[in-house]
Amino acid sequence: MYFEMFQQMKKMLGQFDVWFEHAEAHAKAKSFDANVYLGLRLAPDQFAFARQVQVACDTAKLGAARLTGREAPKHEDNEGNLGELRARVHSTIAYLDTFSAKDFEGTSTRVITQPRWEGKTMTGAAFFLQHVVPNFFFHMSQAYAILRHNGVPLGKRDYLGVLDMRAP
Amino acid sequence: MYFEMFQQMKKMLGQFDVWFEHAEAHAKAKSFDANVYLGLRLAPDQFAFARQVQVACDTAKLGAARLTGREAPKHEDNEGNLGELRARVHSTIAYLDTFSAKDFEGTSTRVITQPRWEGKTMTGAAFFLQHVVPNFFFHMSQAYAILRHNGVPLGKRDYLGVLDMRAP
Repeated sequence: MYFEMFQQMKKMLGQFDVWFEHAEAHAKAKSFDANVYLGLRLAPDQFAFARQVQVACDTAKLGAARLTGREAPKHEDNEGNLGELRARVHSTIAYLDTFSAKDFEGTSTRVITQPRWEGKTMTGAAFFLQHVVPNFFFHMSQAYAILRHNGVPLGKRDYLGVLDMRAP
Repeated sequence: MYFEMFQQMKKMLGQFDVWFEHAEAHAKAKSFDANVYLGLRLAPDQFAFARQVQVACDTAKLGAARLTGREAPKHEDNEGNLGELRARVHSTIAYLDTFSAKDFEGTSTRVITQPRWEGKTMTGAAFFLQHVVPNFFFHMSQAYAILRHNGVPLGKRDYLGVLDMRAP
């Protein structure tokens, strides 16, 4: 299910386009610069909107890379407007598009580490369940909360995207 | 991985206890009634804190029930203070404790529906990936955002809980 969950994350990253459009429309209707959103935050010691989007992207990107033993492309985290943030999201989606189900064979038992863990490790299964999935949805949801709190008319459908439902 | 993800959701529901304690401590320090938190929201047309907690609980409860073909216990959604909200969370955790990995055999291809879908269906796999997982973390994260925005000093560790890391 690793691959399928990354497909789901990819789909949801695609929803950022819809959010950005709503943010731009709201800014236009209220006559302010939509790029103001990049610096908004819900608490002074919490990441601002731009950083929430970057971290959501990186959680998916680095999650897929680490769980498959691949090297992830670097991003400079220097996006200064919604257009650049949109490009960051698209770049992440394009990277996730390079994976296939086969890449995740053996992921469960792979030993995962990262510099900030100071030598500690997690199994691939634990890293995925306890770190990647909760963090990905957390940062997407904080980004959503920042927009909602600041007047952007988003709804649950803008978060989930279209569900694969079958007609009766 | 269905069972393992529900185990993860159960673990994270357990973090609500920590959040409630932080909220109560903050309210005490500022001399206000901690139950005020139940009605706080980030936008007038978004669910308040209590409802976010209830929906997080129900997403896990109903997700596990529907994916295994079991009947879920009913909750009245009438929690009026943090103590009752805490009991609601504990009741959900106790329900999730009744499942084993075996219960989720055949879940991927199970046909899922619910009254509000008006006869439409999803496969178990799609329901889990597109609905249960994104919604569970969404509502936990909105609850987190409401507390953070209103002064409760939560951090990422309070959200994730303890990670299963191995010493070097």
